Order: sequence, then C-alpha cells, then structure tokens
Amino acid sequence: EIAPLNQLGDEQGCRLVDGNVATPDGFAAAYHTYIANGWNAMLGDPNYDGQDLPYSMAIPVHEMLNSANLSWRLTTMLTESTVLALTKHASQALKDIYLAKVISGEWTGTMNLTEPHAGTDLSLLSTKAEPNDDGSYAITGNKIFITAGDQDWTNNIVHLVLARLPNAPAGVKGISLFLVPKFMVNADGSLGAKNSVSVGSIEHKMGIKGSPTCVMNYDDAIGYLVGEENAGLACMFTMMNDARFQVGLQGLGIAEASYQGALTYAVERLQSRAPQGIQAPEQKADPIVFQPDVRRMLLTQRALTEGSRALSMLYAKFMDIEKYTDGEEQAHADHVIAYLTPVCKAFFTDMATEVSNYGIQVYGGHGYIRE
Amino acid sequence: EIAPLNQLGDEQGCRLVDGNVATPDGFAAAYHTYIANGWNAMLGDPNYDGQDLPYSMAIPVHEMLNSANLSWRLTTMLTESTVLALTKHASQALKDIYLAKVISGEWTGTMNLTEPHAGTDLSLLSTKAEPNDDGSYAITGNKIFITAGDQDWTNNIVHLVLARLPNAPAGVKGISLFLVPKFMVNADGSLGAKNSVSVGSIEHKMGIKGSPTCVMNYDDAIGYLVGEENAGLACMFTMMNDARFQVGLQGLGIAEASYQGALTYAVERLQSRAPQGIQAPEQKADPIVFQPDVRRMLLTQRALTEGSRALSMLYAKFMDIEKYTDGEEQAHADHVIAYLTPVCKAFFTDMATEVSNYGIQVYGGHGYIRE
Repeated sequence: EIAPLNQLGDEQGCRLVDGNVATPDGFAAAYHTYIANGWNAMLGDPNYDGQDLPYSMAIPVHEMLNSANLSWRLTTMLTESTVLALTKHASQALKDIYLAKVISGEWTGTMNLTEPHAGTDLSLLSTKAEPNDDGSYAITGNKIFITAGDQDWTNNIVHLVLARLPNAPAGVKGISLFLVPKFMVNADGSLGAKNSVSVGSIEHKMGIKGSPTCVMNYDDAIGYLVGEENAGLACMFTMMNDARFQVGLQGLGIAEASYQGALTYAVERLQSRAPQGIQAPEQKADPIVFQPDVRRMLLTQRALTEGSRALSMLYAKFMDIEKYTDGEEQAHADHVIAYLTPVCKAFFTDMATEVSNYGIQVYGGHGYIRE
Repeated sequence: EIAPLNQLGDEQGCRLVDGNVATPDGFAAAYHTYIANGWNAMLGDPNYDGQDLPYSMAIPVHEMLNSANLSWRLTTMLTESTVLALTKHASQALKDIYLAKVISGEWTGTMNLTEPHAGTDLSLLSTKAEPNDDGSYAITGNKIFITAGDQDWTNNIVHLVLARLPNAPAGVKGISLFLVPKFMVNADGSLGAKNSVSVGSIEHKMGIKGSPTCVMNYDDAIGYLVGEENAGLACMFTMMNDARFQVGLQGLGIAEASYQGALTYAVERLQSRAPQGIQAPEQKADPIVFQPDVRRMLLTQRALTEGSRALSMLYAKFMDIEKYTDGEEQAHADHVIAYLTPVCKAFFTDMATEVSNYGIQVYGGHGYIRE
C-alpha cells in the first residue's frame, strides 16, 4: 500500500494550504492503515500499549519501509524517536498525557534542533523559553529543516524543541528540551486550543518531496520541560541517536530499492550479444545482465547492501541487549552502540550514494529520465 | 549574461507548445548575443566564415560555458559537433548550403543515434532511409534522447540522423548518416517547407531541465546522405568523439562551479570555533573553512578540478597538433586523442560526481535545498 505511493508522492510533493501542510494523495490513508495494524507501536513501552518487540524484529521492517517510500516513512521514523525521548526523559505526568498516543501513532512527533544560524553548532541556538506561572514555558524562535513539521494525517503533533531558559549558561550547557503540542491537550485527553506554532514554509528540497520539511515558527508557544533544565541536549541526543541510525537505515533501504530495480532492468533490457556467447538466440540481442561490467555493478550493489544489512542486524542485536539486560552487559552494549551509530549513519548513506549511482548506470540513459 | 539564467532555466524547464519547444525566458536572447559576438564560430573553417582558432583557446571557453549554464550550453555544443561532422564528411554541395550557417550559429545542429531499442547497441537500429528520385532520401523512424531536438532560438535546425538503406547489411555495417533539415532550404538559401520532422515529447530528466531532450519522429522526412553509404557510423563517430570529450568537459565545468560555490559558502558560513584557535574573535563563531574536514573536502575538489583541467589542456594541445600538422606527427596526435577521449569523458564526469558530492556536503543541509 505504501510503495505504490512513492512516485506519485514525489511528483505531487507537499503544499501549504492556509498555513497547513497538505501531503500527497493516499499518504494519510496509508498511515491510518499502518497505525491501525499496530506497526507504529512495535517498539513502544507496553505500559502505554506498546508491543515491546525486539529491535531485531523492528529494524528489518523499518528498512523495508525506507525502500518502499522514504518520503512516507520519515514521519513515522521521527515519531518513534519522539517515543524514545519521552520514554527516557519525560515526567510521569507528560508520559501519561502523551506517550500512549504517540506510541499508537494517533499523534506524530518531530525533532526541532536546527536554526538558520545554528546547524552543526548548537551552541549558537537562540530560541527562548520563558517560564509561565503554571509551570509551563513560553517558547519563541524559528527552526528550520523540521521533518514532518506539519501533516494532514493526525489531529495533533508533538514537537520536541530545544530552547534556552533565561540566564541559562552560554553554549551547549544552556540548552533545555521542551514538548510543544500543536494543539493543547485538556486534562481529559481531549484537544483544546491551537498552540502558537506555525509553519513558515515548506523547504524546496532536491528529493523526498512527498515528505514536508518545514520552517517552524514558535511565538510564545506553550511548552513543557522534558528532563532537567539545561540538560536538553543530552535528552535530545536520545532522540537524535535513534534518528542517526535510522538515517543510516534510509541509505540501506534506498540502496536495496536501487539494486532490485537495476537487477530487474538488466534481466529485461536487450542490447548486444553476451561476450561469452549468445544467451538468447530467439531474440535479436541478449539481456545486459550478461555484460561483465553490468554484472560487476550489480554484484557490487548486492555486496554493499547485504554487508550493510548484516551490520544493521548486529546493531539491532546490541540494541536488544541494551534494552533487555543490565549492569556490565548493558554498559558494554551501550558502548558498542555509541561506536556503531555514526559508523552506520555515515557508511550506509555513503554506500547508498555509490549503489544508487551504479543503479542509474545500469539503466543507461533511462536512469536519468522519468517514465 | 548566461550564468544568471541557470537557476531560472532549471525551474522553468522547457515546454512543448503546439508541437514546438519553448525554452526558458532569456535563453534565446543570450544565444543571439553569443552568436552575434562570434563565439559559435571559434573553431569553424575560415572558408565558411569560421575563425579557425586553436582548441587551446576554445576549450577553456567551453569549460566556462558549462560552469555558467550547462542547460544552455548543450545546444551550442552539439552545433559545434555538427560543424565538425559536416566539415569532414559532407559533400561540397551540402557544405555550401549548410556549413556557414551552422558555423555562425544561425542554425543549430543535433545528433540522432539512439532509438528505444537501440542505445548502446546500434546494430539494432531500425530507422529507414528510402532513396527518392532526386537523389535525396525519405527517412522514417523514431529517435530518443535527442539533445536540443527542437528550440525557439533559430529558424532552422540541422539534424544528423543514422538510418538504414534498403538491403543494407545487418548490424553496424549497414548504417548510413543523413542530414535532415527541420525546414527545407531553397537553392537561394531561403527557407522552404517544413520537413516531416516532429517532436514526439520532451523527456522528463532529473536535471538540466532548461535543455530540451526530445523524442524525435521522422516520417518520410527528406534527408541527404553524408559520407559514403553504409559508412555512417564512422562519420557519426567524428561527431560523437567530439561530443564525448565535450561531455567530459561538462563534468569539469560542473565540478568547478561546485568548488567555487562551496568555497564561497565555507568562507561566509559561521559555525563553531576553529580547532586551531579562534579565528574571528569579533564573531560568535568562525567560518567553517577553518574546519579540517571542510578544508579536506575543498582541497580535494580543487585538486580534482585543476588536475582535470590540466588534462583537458593536454587534450587541446593534441587536438591542435592533429589539426595543424600532417604525416606522422598528425597520426601520433590522432592516436593520443583516441586514447584520451574516453579517459576524459569517464574521468571528468565521475570526478564531477565526487566533487559535487563534496560541494553538497560543505553546504550542509543547505546543499539539499533551493533558496
């Protein structure tokens, strides 16, 4: 249901209609099927209706979602990262209000770090958080590159936003994390007024156009502290580390899709005779899969994707050890994960560029045009 | 005048209006300035108002055109290749009618090899050429991926088309080359009736959208033999070899543009402090050009582009030797060119992919979006 929406999604892209994001046709319906069947809740805490499945089961599903439709997948990916950050760092009160709904996918989540002048260097971050009398905070600032900053799939969105408290220390030691809902949530769980969060614009990206990447404006928006004051970056890193591995997995998913497409084309496309002798005498030419250079490219694609998949499963194994053990065993798994996270992110995405490049070349001129 | 049209050209793209290609705003005007100033005629035969300049002077200009606006450049590039093929292989009569106008750029040229089922394997080519009573031929077939197959810059276009004569030998030994004008040319040089050449569609490419890549339909179109019967592939190779080197030069042009953009951005963009100590104490952060990994990427870009440029000038030198000498010296230059042509095409274009990839990374997230 998700893969057939991929090309359409990139062609239609996302639009801003009266300040709200409209996603491509079919994206919302596919999401509702997805959450109704429980896929969003695979890794969630069972106390909030999560399924508590091992990562070894979830990660191959995530890889397939990336292959099927990366634009569509990005929203659920960051919702899962939101679940993780709230599970580890949010107060009991916040968890009771938000967690079950983000785990089920009734609401989605976003990650707000980057500002126009603070990208790699979060010490320059200038979004402000002023305490309100009721224990909440007023958040004001602009964030850019916010994946799924808005969508038309669910009736609420949970934004996790980095901001500075008054008199916070300079640099990264003065950053706190806040939960800012798109719509306020009443005590009985029903939705209240719209919060002062708005979409400034949708970024014009080169690809994944079906996924809205937004400029977000927070203008005295009501937010709630997640974790300790001035310790927001550590909390966000819980989310970001999960997202980093998942970005690596995007590379793996794209590489696999490229390999599958190139292999199918190479078996069907007839050009020239095979150097080792005629393979399809009933045809005017042989499939290009018999050309040595095409075979080399396809086998390189396959070796890189299968090797990366093996590494992703090793990563999943250590994620499971970290999740289900304690003490030294858990600490060791933690170290391995910290080591492997940037390796997976960098290697899988670089690998995907190489594999997709081979894919385009196997298609010849047809790899450069759309049909 | 050409570079500022680049972004606009890719945004507007080309449209098919009543069967004719409409190019982006400003493209035609820039072309008229270009040909009025004689740039199209740099390499042409002086007997037909060409300037007969050395390749060593022309190739750096071509590189700059590629950097400025590749979409725009492609049309003039194939016009120059057309000039070369006609100069070497056309009859005196054809030269007298067509050559001066293609050299000046009053008319443009195209190269028609590929068919839906005959890409890398031209032996499968099926476009037909039937002799007419007057010595011309009736050309019928479909060609794809035709760069600048139509445009709204000039009042005529000279198509060079590969086709098979009746009873031609099978395979690549039965291919002939024909000149097929968009509009017939009267004896006095004025334009006559429209020939039976039409644009089937504009291909939907990933990039260079300002350049129309066309599906061309020839339906009993009147054509004239260029070179000997059944020796068309050798004639076309004159054109294609020139185009192959020029495609390499496209890579070099794009790589240089990427390097210049990345360098400018790295000097302006402030993020973090330089590891070797504060460089801009009056600012909140230092330019990213002081980050070692950014320097590594920029220097790699520069080394690859400058090295490639040196090779392009070596190529130009041998092109000049081949042009201005004879005997053994010319034969040796011919061999060197034959050896270097695929090296330049493959290396410069692969290099450009690598250099541009670094360029995107220097820009960070801004490398993935359009502003």
